[in-house]
Amino acid sequence: METIGFIGLGIMGSPMAQNLIKARYTLVVYDIIKECVNEIASARAMAAASALEVAEKSNVVITMLPDSPDVEAVVFGNNGVLTGIRPGSLFIDMSTIALATSKKVYNALQEKGVESLDAPVSGGDVGAKAGTLSIMVGGSDEAFKRALPLFEVMGKNIVHIGDPGAGQVTKTANQIVVALTIQAVAEALTLVKKSGVDIARVRDALLGGFAQSRILDLHGQRILERNFKPGFKIKLHHKDLGIALQIARELGLSLNNTAQAAEFMNALIAQGKGELDHSSLILLVEALSGLTE
Amino acid sequence: METIGFIGLGIMGSPMAQNLIKARYTLVVYDIIKECVNEIASARAMAAASALEVAEKSNVVITMLPDSPDVEAVVFGNNGVLTGIRPGSLFIDMSTIALATSKKVYNALQEKGVESLDAPVSGGDVGAKAGTLSIMVGGSDEAFKRALPLFEVMGKNIVHIGDPGAGQVTKTANQIVVALTIQAVAEALTLVKKSGVDIARVRDALLGGFAQSRILDLHGQRILERNFKPGFKIKLHHKDLGIALQIARELGLSLNNTAQAAEFMNALIAQGKGELDHSSLILLVEALSGLTE
Repeated sequence: METIGFIGLGIMGSPMAQNLIKARYTLVVYDIIKECVNEIASARAMAAASALEVAEKSNVVITMLPDSPDVEAVVFGNNGVLTGIRPGSLFIDMSTIALATSKKVYNALQEKGVESLDAPVSGGDVGAKAGTLSIMVGGSDEAFKRALPLFEVMGKNIVHIGDPGAGQVTKTANQIVVALTIQAVAEALTLVKKSGVDIARVRDALLGGFAQSRILDLHGQRILERNFKPGFKIKLHHKDLGIALQIARELGLSLNNTAQAAEFMNALIAQGKGELDHSSLILLVEALSGLTE
Repeated sequence: METIGFIGLGIMGSPMAQNLIKARYTLVVYDIIKECVNEIASARAMAAASALEVAEKSNVVITMLPDSPDVEAVVFGNNGVLTGIRPGSLFIDMSTIALATSKKVYNALQEKGVESLDAPVSGGDVGAKAGTLSIMVGGSDEAFKRALPLFEVMGKNIVHIGDPGAGQVTKTANQIVVALTIQAVAEALTLVKKSGVDIARVRDALLGGFAQSRILDLHGQRILERNFKPGFKIKLHHKDLGIALQIARELGLSLNNTAQAAEFMNALIAQGKGELDHSSLILLVEALSGLTE
């Protein structure tokens, strides 16, 4: 069995690493926050002092980090993965990051004789704990085949989309659809509420037709209950839409409603609501029209 | 059995009336276009010369018309329903129209001792033919109960939402969600396509997660096939978003993305694409970024 390096032991990374341990893999783990390492360290999860040490001691290195600069630091920084990793190793970045960063990492590792995959996930901490994440993968067939047993421990809906970067593009598309579908539900339910019509009944009726979506179901229920506890935080979704708009600029694309939704999230963050669930987009739609809690 | 008046025998109304005939109801039918009447007239569907005549000869009058002015003309016009309808009759407007018009019609009929329902539908001509329309109903419990056997002939997902107008509010919410979900899918898939990633695979991956929607499924497939044959025409959806924005103005609501989607549809109509399916919203997203067929 391959020795798995795991870097990034936060809300997502920690349960993902735990699931690998449960599946009887041997891990070498690292996080910039010492307590996160201590929590998981055991006979089967050796604590490392740096990303470099993780890379030296593993055959497969997985990263699960918050944002592009974190991945850059872990790969290219002093005591980074690039210095320690051996040819023939496999590098899997499961973070959601900029396409440009993802490609830069891929190219640098190729030069060292290391195959890599971009494999961002969706499903949140609930999916990470249950091992039911959706995993969207870009990279070569061989690398995908090598990683598949690990993905099957961490996720359920695992799709090899295409070439390097294709995983990040897919995740970005996912985040655009989710944000704009929340906006769709938010505008519709605000109109219903202001009309004095029962939003629970409208949600039921709409779930039976073309307006059906998982967002109308799950986030519609959150809106009914006025439950904006995350779930997936506005500030993280805002980061992801930033990635979408960066890709759009690089490719020369105008994504009107995506830009608008990013600005709405920006406003919510400015109002101190960045820690709320992304279904709280409706709070801005309501506030624009003078509706307050 | 009640005698059913049916006014408006177009793409939707004609198959709905046919289903009532098949269910062994006796109909009195009228349309402003003589050929539409001739096509359906038979021993069980007596042709009337005016809306007034329909109202005089029926216990229940159903209207299925394109827009608010058509309903106003049929109800309030010379030889209109209001002149002929008898107290104790039931009036059911299944058109998608402005909330203000719907309430005006309701009030005028109440003064004549006539109960009425607003009962707009979704599901298109396919649903109308199959008798599987979703029907969203506003009005009193008694009126709903009286109409239910008729609704069950024409539709499947039949929900009594609430007071008069609640059906129109629900339909409006439905049209907002559908339009903005198409926009969501259009922006995401345009980014994917321009990235050179396979949009069929991305759609598959996204259908397994939070981005799932009936629109991503059905309209995503249309987009894959570049099949913009209606379905539901841009110009009709544009009309419905006009109703949404009118309600929003009346209620004092700012619906940012709804207004934007209405403008996008406006642009498509200006470009001569109003007869295409509403999934062709993606053509505008593409054109904005200089992508052409």
